Amino acid sequence: MAQTFEEISPADFFYRNRDIAGFTNPTRAIFTAIRELVENSLDAAEQIGVPPDIYVRLTLEGKTTHGTEIYKLRIEDNGSGIPPRYIPAAFGQVLFGSKYKLKQMRGTFGLGGTMAILYGQITTHRPAYVVSSTGGARIFMYRLMIDIQRNRPIILEKRTMLNKTGWRGTIVEFSLEGDYFRAMPKILEYFKQTAVMNPYANLTFVDPRGRLYIFRRVTTRMPPPPKETKPHPYGIDVELLQRLIQITDCKNMLDFLKKHFHRIGDNIARKFLEFAEIDFLKDPKKLTHDEIVHLARAMKSFPDFLPPDASCLSPLGEELLRAGILKELKPEFIAVCQRKPSTYAGHPFIVEVAVAYGGEIPRKNDFILYRFANRIPLLYDEASDVSFKVIHSINWRRYRVTPDMPIAILVHICSTKIPYKTVGKEFIADRPEVKKEILNGIREVARQLQRYLSKREYAERQRRRLNIFAKYLPKIAEFSTKLAGMEQPPDINGLLRSVEKLGLES
Amino acid sequence: MAQTFEEISPADFFYRNRDIAGFTNPTRAIFTAIRELVENSLDAAEQIGVPPDIYVRLTLEGKTTHGTEIYKLRIEDNGSGIPPRYIPAAFGQVLFGSKYKLKQMRGTFGLGGTMAILYGQITTHRPAYVVSSTGGARIFMYRLMIDIQRNRPIILEKRTMLNKTGWRGTIVEFSLEGDYFRAMPKILEYFKQTAVMNPYANLTFVDPRGRLYIFRRVTTRMPPPPKETKPHPYGIDVELLQRLIQITDCKNMLDFLKKHFHRIGDNIARKFLEFAEIDFLKDPKKLTHDEIVHLARAMKSFPDFLPPDASCLSPLGEELLRAGILKELKPEFIAVCQRKPSTYAGHPFIVEVAVAYGGEIPRKNDFILYRFANRIPLLYDEASDVSFKVIHSINWRRYRVTPDMPIAILVHICSTKIPYKTVGKEFIADRPEVKKEILNGIREVARQLQRYLSKREYAERQRRRLNIFAKYLPKIAEFSTKLAGMEQPPDINGLLRSVEKLGLES
Repeated sequence: MAQTFEEISPADFFYRNRDIAGFTNPTRAIFTAIRELVENSLDAAEQIGVPPDIYVRLTLEGKTTHGTEIYKLRIEDNGSGIPPRYIPAAFGQVLFGSKYKLKQMRGTFGLGGTMAILYGQITTHRPAYVVSSTGGARIFMYRLMIDIQRNRPIILEKRTMLNKTGWRGTIVEFSLEGDYFRAMPKILEYFKQTAVMNPYANLTFVDPRGRLYIFRRVTTRMPPPPKETKPHPYGIDVELLQRLIQITDCKNMLDFLKKHFHRIGDNIARKFLEFAEIDFLKDPKKLTHDEIVHLARAMKSFPDFLPPDASCLSPLGEELLRAGILKELKPEFIAVCQRKPSTYAGHPFIVEVAVAYGGEIPRKNDFILYRFANRIPLLYDEASDVSFKVIHSINWRRYRVTPDMPIAILVHICSTKIPYKTVGKEFIADRPEVKKEILNGIREVARQLQRYLSKREYAERQRRRLNIFAKYLPKIAEFSTKLAGMEQPPDINGLLRSVEKLGLES
Repeated sequence: MAQTFEEISPADFFYRNRDIAGFTNPTRAIFTAIRELVENSLDAAEQIGVPPDIYVRLTLEGKTTHGTEIYKLRIEDNGSGIPPRYIPAAFGQVLFGSKYKLKQMRGTFGLGGTMAILYGQITTHRPAYVVSSTGGARIFMYRLMIDIQRNRPIILEKRTMLNKTGWRGTIVEFSLEGDYFRAMPKILEYFKQTAVMNPYANLTFVDPRGRLYIFRRVTTRMPPPPKETKPHPYGIDVELLQRLIQITDCKNMLDFLKKHFHRIGDNIARKFLEFAEIDFLKDPKKLTHDEIVHLARAMKSFPDFLPPDASCLSPLGEELLRAGILKELKPEFIAVCQRKPSTYAGHPFIVEVAVAYGGEIPRKNDFILYRFANRIPLLYDEASDVSFKVIHSINWRRYRVTPDMPIAILVHICSTKIPYKTVGKEFIADRPEVKKEILNGIREVARQLQRYLSKREYAERQRRRLNIFAKYLPKIAEFSTKLAGMEQPPDINGLLRSVEKLGLES
């Protein structure tokens, strides 16, 4: 019996394997759909330097006969908007998007929004509705579906409207099968954690029961946006080199290196070409097969390239991180640590760590761990994540901290390439360089927490000491008065104050 | 700053995200490449009912400058061969293959072999070499590479040769960066476990040091091959319905249901159409949007469809499972249990469980767990796998078994759709239906093991008892003889025999 062969489109691949993208079941799917669209909206606003205003509304449309519901999901933002010629493909074609650059970005695979719409279509067979404007004279509306077998959008309706108010932004609305009530805790947790990491954003969520959840901004300050960067030689491979050679207009190797790579100046370029024994004036387009392979190997082994510069990255920064944590978690104490930039496999990354103690932070059996990557919360597979492993490898007794204390630990990694394990972005793989930064960051904030707790404990002891004095001294004074046959007890306030003073000094 | 949009091909997507497919680093990559190709070869032989003969050779070609090596990987099989017109796309195009059917198959995503070649190309920039014949008059050879940006094969050379010996099979050879010495334990473990699950296959592996590892078949009996099946109504969705409607040549709903779905006969079809309030004679191609959605919902909720038939599946079977375990693990005792077929989400599955005790099975801190899905070994992420969780949820003391005993547990799941978590096929998700079957299977073999151990313990006690008698009775006889002043001690053999007989009866 012969084998029969066929080709399938990327949309078809993800239709058959939607688990990979986080659309495993109606509970998980509704969570994933909301998060993908919120993240697109955050990116769209930050891109133009505008504090994001995002409105999410989930409405019950009906029930399926197998125990789940159909919802309409609507999300509206004040971001950059999408030019009309790109709208159909941006939502109706898998592997089409604005995110295939070397840059710190939220949705890494360019699948997100389109997968959500694909899932909605598969489960309800209703079209999606997109309205967008880049702030110009017109607003564009599309009703569309995805031709899954061809991986192409099907435009059912298209309308152009006058943009009288100069509105700018994007509205996406579509129906999907979901189990909101099971997903609710994760969805609300997602909004809360997103609010921590984006304290300059207004997030509004209206749930199917009409309940309103508002996460208000506490600042309009935003970190500088991430920048696109050139590839670093340590992260190069032959395929990438070939593409650069194809598109370059440089006529010699010296210019080629200086133009297309990260942090290669004239000096280093010359040193490298000597090391690699390649002629400075060689035309890159004339390199043979083997010469390109040789060049790639030389780039990986030349020891004098400058390490990747993290200036393309955009960590949240200490001030905003404090603001976000204070806003949402309301602790008694916060310690924050931003590690110096580091690299893995030619990609720069920065780790930010925070610990929050007391206040409204609840006590649990274990530390509460908040994990973020490129400012998105990671809410699943905690136990597989490198941060979880690091935390459980630490001997906390050194810091006089126990897991039953009301403590939350927050770890944020930003990079041009987050080492995720799965497309659903659930946890981060074990990279030694990353692990090291997280470990050192946590140790730093743990030390600060330890100092705070010691001081607190000390102050607590002093207070109890003073209480005892304040409780018994008057009695002693009274009895002594009687014993000595005096009328009036002495004034003990001076004595109390000097005890207090002594206590503060010791 | 406007967003810029672009499209990327599936090959490009997996080039950028090769971690997803198991090509995370040189150690993991060389393991994944070998397994993907071995699994293709096993499928190719089983397809034509031929016991597989597979030869794998790994040769060191050179060193890279960053501490890893370049290997040439060659794999040769006696399978069905690939028709020449399909060879370039089968290896040079991502998402092209023979595995996009509803069937129990090893490589689930149609990525496997092509990803290995893609990885080889990215890391060495050398072409791949494929030779194949379906047993006809000619043998076809291709040298090819992948155009990653277009997701198309680039044919560098093509040759046709006369097939004088009537050879049939496929040879794949290509270079890749790898770290064999780190990967070696997993690679050897992979071959061993594959030999357990395929006792009718000859596997030969020659490692870079020239060491030969042979896993010889112990039988030519093979289980019947898996069969392609039609979709079951409980697993239907609107997209799938639409495609069936598009391709059908049935003119009415009654025939449409009977022809395109699994186990819908005339009777059930009529009952269903009444339930769904759809006219029997309606032309499926005339169904509207909303009617298709209604039909999908009705299919999911109609309670009287027969459950999926597992006749399309091909479990290994008790006899072959014993043969494989005996051959590779050489235990003292084996218990096997094949559970009745079950289903999840409209997909049939069968769980087979075995326990092996003693003999050459080593003692460890915990049970040794072997996990298989559609006859391929799963060697990573054990702790996340449903089988691991089930084993650790069992109270083994009930079975008088402790984890330090020399025990291996084997769990095999076969299905038309294995609920993997990631594309790298490392572990199986927690599905309640699957969990239940594994749990009951393990309980069954645990009971058998308990009975065996009890008998052994009992036999052991008896032996010790007899030893004591055999040791002391002669002495007692001797002393009694002296005490009684007799010359000759009595014959105690009769007495020993009756003690033994008493022991066996009690």
